[in-house]
Amino acid sequence: MIKKYTSGRPINTQAVVEQFDSISIKELPFKNKIDNGKFIFEFDMSEDDIVYGLGEAPRGINKRGWVYESFCSDDPFHTETKSSLYAAHNFIMLYGSNTFGIFIDFPAKIRWDIGYTSSNKTVVAIDGTDFDIYFIDNGTPIEIVKEFRKAIGTSYIPPFWAFGYQQSRWSYHNAAAVDAVIDGYNKADIPLDSVYLDIDYMQCYKDFTVDEEKFPDFKKYVEEKRRQGIHLIPIIDAGVKKEDGYSVYEEGRDNGYFCKTEDGSDFEGGVWPGIVGFPDFLREDVREWFGSKYKVLTDCGIDGFWNDMNEPAIFYSEKGLENALNKAVDMKGKNLDLSKFFELKDTFLGLSNNAEDYSSIYHTIDGRQVCHDKVHNIYGANMTKAAGEYFEKEFGKGKILMFSRASYIGAHRSSGIWFGDNHSWWSHILLNLKMLPSANMCGFLYCGADLGGFNENATRDLVLRFLALGVFTPLMRNHAALGTRNQECYNFENCEDFKDIVQVRYRLIPYLYRIFCKASEENDMIFRPLSFDYPDDKIARECETQLMLGDECMICPVYEQNVNGQYVYLPEDMTFVKLSGTNVSTEEMKKGVHYIDVRLNEVPLFIKQGKQIELCSPALRTSFLNAEDCIMIP
Amino acid sequence: MIKKYTSGRPINTQAVVEQFDSISIKELPFKNKIDNGKFIFEFDMSEDDIVYGLGEAPRGINKRGWVYESFCSDDPFHTETKSSLYAAHNFIMLYGSNTFGIFIDFPAKIRWDIGYTSSNKTVVAIDGTDFDIYFIDNGTPIEIVKEFRKAIGTSYIPPFWAFGYQQSRWSYHNAAAVDAVIDGYNKADIPLDSVYLDIDYMQCYKDFTVDEEKFPDFKKYVEEKRRQGIHLIPIIDAGVKKEDGYSVYEEGRDNGYFCKTEDGSDFEGGVWPGIVGFPDFLREDVREWFGSKYKVLTDCGIDGFWNDMNEPAIFYSEKGLENALNKAVDMKGKNLDLSKFFELKDTFLGLSNNAEDYSSIYHTIDGRQVCHDKVHNIYGANMTKAAGEYFEKEFGKGKILMFSRASYIGAHRSSGIWFGDNHSWWSHILLNLKMLPSANMCGFLYCGADLGGFNENATRDLVLRFLALGVFTPLMRNHAALGTRNQECYNFENCEDFKDIVQVRYRLIPYLYRIFCKASEENDMIFRPLSFDYPDDKIARECETQLMLGDECMICPVYEQNVNGQYVYLPEDMTFVKLSGTNVSTEEMKKGVHYIDVRLNEVPLFIKQGKQIELCSPALRTSFLNAEDCIMIP
Repeated sequence: MIKKYTSGRPINTQAVVEQFDSISIKELPFKNKIDNGKFIFEFDMSEDDIVYGLGEAPRGINKRGWVYESFCSDDPFHTETKSSLYAAHNFIMLYGSNTFGIFIDFPAKIRWDIGYTSSNKTVVAIDGTDFDIYFIDNGTPIEIVKEFRKAIGTSYIPPFWAFGYQQSRWSYHNAAAVDAVIDGYNKADIPLDSVYLDIDYMQCYKDFTVDEEKFPDFKKYVEEKRRQGIHLIPIIDAGVKKEDGYSVYEEGRDNGYFCKTEDGSDFEGGVWPGIVGFPDFLREDVREWFGSKYKVLTDCGIDGFWNDMNEPAIFYSEKGLENALNKAVDMKGKNLDLSKFFELKDTFLGLSNNAEDYSSIYHTIDGRQVCHDKVHNIYGANMTKAAGEYFEKEFGKGKILMFSRASYIGAHRSSGIWFGDNHSWWSHILLNLKMLPSANMCGFLYCGADLGGFNENATRDLVLRFLALGVFTPLMRNHAALGTRNQECYNFENCEDFKDIVQVRYRLIPYLYRIFCKASEENDMIFRPLSFDYPDDKIARECETQLMLGDECMICPVYEQNVNGQYVYLPEDMTFVKLSGTNVSTEEMKKGVHYIDVRLNEVPLFIKQGKQIELCSPALRTSFLNAEDCIMIP
Repeated sequence: MIKKYTSGRPINTQAVVEQFDSISIKELPFKNKIDNGKFIFEFDMSEDDIVYGLGEAPRGINKRGWVYESFCSDDPFHTETKSSLYAAHNFIMLYGSNTFGIFIDFPAKIRWDIGYTSSNKTVVAIDGTDFDIYFIDNGTPIEIVKEFRKAIGTSYIPPFWAFGYQQSRWSYHNAAAVDAVIDGYNKADIPLDSVYLDIDYMQCYKDFTVDEEKFPDFKKYVEEKRRQGIHLIPIIDAGVKKEDGYSVYEEGRDNGYFCKTEDGSDFEGGVWPGIVGFPDFLREDVREWFGSKYKVLTDCGIDGFWNDMNEPAIFYSEKGLENALNKAVDMKGKNLDLSKFFELKDTFLGLSNNAEDYSSIYHTIDGRQVCHDKVHNIYGANMTKAAGEYFEKEFGKGKILMFSRASYIGAHRSSGIWFGDNHSWWSHILLNLKMLPSANMCGFLYCGADLGGFNENATRDLVLRFLALGVFTPLMRNHAALGTRNQECYNFENCEDFKDIVQVRYRLIPYLYRIFCKASEENDMIFRPLSFDYPDDKIARECETQLMLGDECMICPVYEQNVNGQYVYLPEDMTFVKLSGTNVSTEEMKKGVHYIDVRLNEVPLFIKQGKQIELCSPALRTSFLNAEDCIMIP
């Protein structure tokens, strides 16, 4: 049962598609107050209550014991003490002595103190007084999630081939580099469906351009790759390079499509192309315009995109840089002083994604100038909506692969997400796992992390173990940053082990695609915390290293280096399946604690009693898979 | 059996105290070459071989699958992909199909590629050709460690009270702040033996001064605290503030005691006090001079110190800052360009601990000018030696508590170490655990991490779980950084839980002190990997979440948030002991995998069959402990 409490005059984020009558915020069943322009409410928690939610966010599946902030952030250091990642997914659910869900539909900052300041209290501070709160109770956790998901609308389903294995890097900067990747995979006989084009495929990082020196006849090249069964997925950034003669910029400028400063001039920030204008995606006409620009690439046969830098990320503003330089000039020749030194260093460090810069950006909503601070969290979602609306109109539902870095609930109807610029850290295997059920609760089904880790150097075993989790994530993409070690499977020793793991993915695709579509249709989750299925099992309730998958399975990836095994907890008797390339071994296992052997080329999977899943033969491309050719296991 | 292979003319680091005949490096039983001035050797590893060692270093107990660098580094972000921490402990041990230890006595950089580039190969690159390699074989891992430890001499034993619980923060900046801490602990009835003075107790961060406004009659104050059973532990930094009229600086300058630049002038770098001179601790006369300065504080009754910033940390040099400012001035008014922006930002970021600055520092060794690059890793160790030599001469062995941030093997004879500026991250509980056996192998017995985490905000449960490991570490110190949440036990809700944990420590002190002294006398380890005791047990061999403690125990801390339990593996039948304040519960447990319940106020401990340990009654100070009043458990 959903109740909608309205305060003030909320901005329409289009997150919710069902209609609900508004109840006055005064009726909200939580202790609350308005303090310094913020609406603050709180609720108590019993000692063993769990708090789920927040989608793409740091830390555990259980969000207790930390303070989070809804604020789409371009911050690549996903350490434990961060409060935000790239998304703002304002749904939480208390599960325990009392069970209910809360969605706060509000596009600016929200601070969630979930047992941080006081262990048994959640205090939520909304940075304003214009918002809707949806309160959902009377149900089990999965019932509450389904009711919420119904309210926010059906989740995006990508094309079938998007379930294939995907290889990315910043950057495969020309056709020869892309060919080398495809060749490397072909020679190693490792399946592959997509290769990504990061920012260097463009002319000087200009959206909707292709550098002709790097890709001489792009359309022909794309078609040639398609004949090889490979999809090329170019990146699109939020900022449009300021350059006379560049038509996208000129159209944006001449039509007033870019975000403004207070005085009505275009806001200008520095990103990859240098100075850019930021399209005001909150306007329908701007979305229509920007969305139609993707045609340049779809006309070349491109059928997949990733939208990036749309938090929006801003390396610097002209004003910020000028201030920093002035400070430096001021200090020149003066006596050194430690506090001045740190002040200067911090000024340069603080140039990127600077709060003052964000505050100086203005959008136009229904003819009104609205400060960016009030709508920050829906900027990226609306960029993706621009593309999604165009694709659906032009090609119909689910024909184009689309996923985004920044997101807000609602964007799940038109795209997937990836979890941003993670690191080649073992701990990020578990972080990836932990975000899966949280993202599912918020509607995002097509998602995944950069397998092997984006930043810094990966090791062979890390990539293998990361991929062995990625086998189950709808988006299975290996991605790495400029300057890091080559991370493509064929670049490591004994790449047969990689072949085994990626082949397991292809064998599972019919099953994974089936449960994905079912979850979308039924507003269900693909990945669930164990507690959803075993509410009375103490160990299952606190387990954050395993997940339930569909109605049939439990997964348990290995997430430590230099081990050949892994602890696992079985909440009931299950069949332990070890998958590896063309091999399948099964073993009945009793409820309880076990230590299982898992070699680097193996994927562990547990199947519930009385359940079976289909497994097909591996193939080099999703298009070669034969779903008729499945065996059932166990 | 130890063999010493000598190449060139090694600098005498005084790491090894036993005499060995030199064998020509040509006889070294490893494939080797000299490449670009580096001596590089390698050995193969079987798939299941383990590599132990490197003391204070990132990542696992098993060092396989990463590349490390011996280079004392002031870097507070102890993430998985770092290659160095504050120490350079050049001992590794291969354990498996072949078992041997290697100590490289060399004070400059060494790169250890332990199965990173090639999974089954270790490649060690020594940044020079003047070094000794000690090769130790023919023994079990513990025999090899003991033989190595005998060669490097007996480990430092601190005063008994240094086993008490210690509270630190950057900073308790005056007497009232210190009193408030003691008062807080007294009122909460939580044991405490020491309170730390971080940099703010000094006059403008000047070594061997006390700010009289903050501590009006320091000697009287120290005596008063001692009557309350509390030891005050001041910090000493490596750099000496450049200030006319400051006697320590003037003596250093006038006697030529500071490190030089190439032209013979004093090298000047910016640290906490602003511009400082760095004493050339590699000279015996400078050590004697600097060591004798501690008298200012020991005369006030101080009997414990921590040496900091001695990697050495350098925030900036005048030259580096000038270059950065010039770059900024140059850019002013010019057109923006992304690469220029990043260049400038990176210049400011790179000012601290800058390689060019290090290269411009010169030491005097036997009358020769030696570039800092050649001796970087023994700088901090010699600072600590300066103090240790003075204390031993003046007070005798083990009377003064002394530990250091930077270290090199050899310093273990005169001091302990702490593991530097960690974070309030759950993952740092395990990092702490993993460094304990590694540090022990290298002679460092008195050691520990900043419990609760130094940087960023801690949560109540994190501090409790961190302390529950710290109960077993010889140095049990809670420490937190400026600007972070208060981390003293009494500042959290229900501090009875903290009382339980700290009381467990005091009950264990007679046992811990006994095994500590025994380990020092017998060149033994206090903490061992499980594989040392159970070499044929596959699960034990790869376990990195538990440690053997003394001859009697196994420890297994809880290291995750929001859990009431923990997986544990018993390599044999053991007694599971749960300790909590004045309570003890015991349970016989069978060999195998278990999930144990451990509440926030409990410390889990496993005792081997047929073994017992002594447990005394808790007390508020170590001086109140009655070792006669012990019970034996189980």
